[in-house]
Amino acid sequence: MKDQTMKLYSMPSSGNSYKVRLLLALLGRHDVPCIDVEYGSATLEQAHAEKRLPFGKAPVLELDDGTLLPESNAILAYLGKDSRFVPNDPLAQAQMLSWMFWEQNQHEGVIAVRAALLTYPHRKAQATPERLAELLVSGNGLLQIMDDHLSTRDWLLGNNASLADICLYAYTHTAETRGGFDLTPFPALRGWIGRVAALPGYVGL
Amino acid sequence: MKDQTMKLYSMPSSGNSYKVRLLLALLGRHDVPCIDVEYGSATLEQAHAEKRLPFGKAPVLELDDGTLLPESNAILAYLGKDSRFVPNDPLAQAQMLSWMFWEQNQHEGVIAVRAALLTYPHRKAQATPERLAELLVSGNGLLQIMDDHLSTRDWLLGNNASLADICLYAYTHTAETRGGFDLTPFPALRGWIGRVAALPGYVGL
Repeated sequence: MKDQTMKLYSMPSSGNSYKVRLLLALLGRHDVPCIDVEYGSATLEQAHAEKRLPFGKAPVLELDDGTLLPESNAILAYLGKDSRFVPNDPLAQAQMLSWMFWEQNQHEGVIAVRAALLTYPHRKAQATPERLAELLVSGNGLLQIMDDHLSTRDWLLGNNASLADICLYAYTHTAETRGGFDLTPFPALRGWIGRVAALPGYVGL
Repeated sequence: MKDQTMKLYSMPSSGNSYKVRLLLALLGRHDVPCIDVEYGSATLEQAHAEKRLPFGKAPVLELDDGTLLPESNAILAYLGKDSRFVPNDPLAQAQMLSWMFWEQNQHEGVIAVRAALLTYPHRKAQATPERLAELLVSGNGLLQIMDDHLSTRDWLLGNNASLADICLYAYTHTAETRGGFDLTPFPALRGWIGRVAALPGYVGL
């Protein structure tokens, strides 16, 4: 999808925004400008005022005709279409989507939320010891699902990195540094994090 | 995708399972048997014991070769592929996915969760007045996003029902009866609920 005038509304601190920037980098798409809309910034206020964030959140991809595409994983699907990060087989495509829906429904609501409670000042009031403890238990269960799955394979599906890996890497690779999870018990997961970080064109958060 | 021996692990009380049964009915696919795995049932215990629910939840579609496809919206994408419920245009496909990811990340975690707290005995301890009040406020905001969008169109995208409508109908149409939301202030949403219920082949929850 070449579109010289598309642009990305991206929150620099957010894993959801990062996963789109990571895919763009892996695809060698250095032509898509990012408009940073960090919490508390004037650009975020402006993006809200100009109704550029249809569901009230970043990231949003704005196309040349002004169409606004929200939701990080839908943006991955749009930008990744017909690339090496999307398998050809319909069943493999559906399996890729399984991981991506699981990420938004289960993983992000626990792993990313624990990191947000620990790092964003405006979330601090919700970071009670009980809530953090609950999220630690749930999060370890989710990381275990990934570790079990990756114990017999290099990538979440098939023999190559797909959008599922890019999607789940975003909040998993900072689970330790931001979310306070200990990844020592998850060796397969740690190996997979290293493989994503070694992909040609990779950029960090 | 004709596959005479596929079967669906479905939780009768769950909107996520219902949306798959609704799509199968709309497609005239009456050949896919449902294995009911309701909370507390022996069949649910058995499905867990036999590792038929990869992420620990229903619905799961089991294919003839034993492949297990979890996540309701990924199952919709697999069963709906090349049907009239998926647009041909890549951008429209991505917009459909935007609504479906939003449903799993935002809508389901509020509208469905409030209904679950009010209806499932094992969730009752979490149904504090504060939590229910919070979910009411958040949920009304989400229903407003849908109502605003539907105020100028019949369907969430394009001129026809798509997987996005089937997906979001599941928990929206029971928001009032199960979730305790008042849909009176959302006339466009109520009109859309009626249009989905009038689709040929429709089945109720």
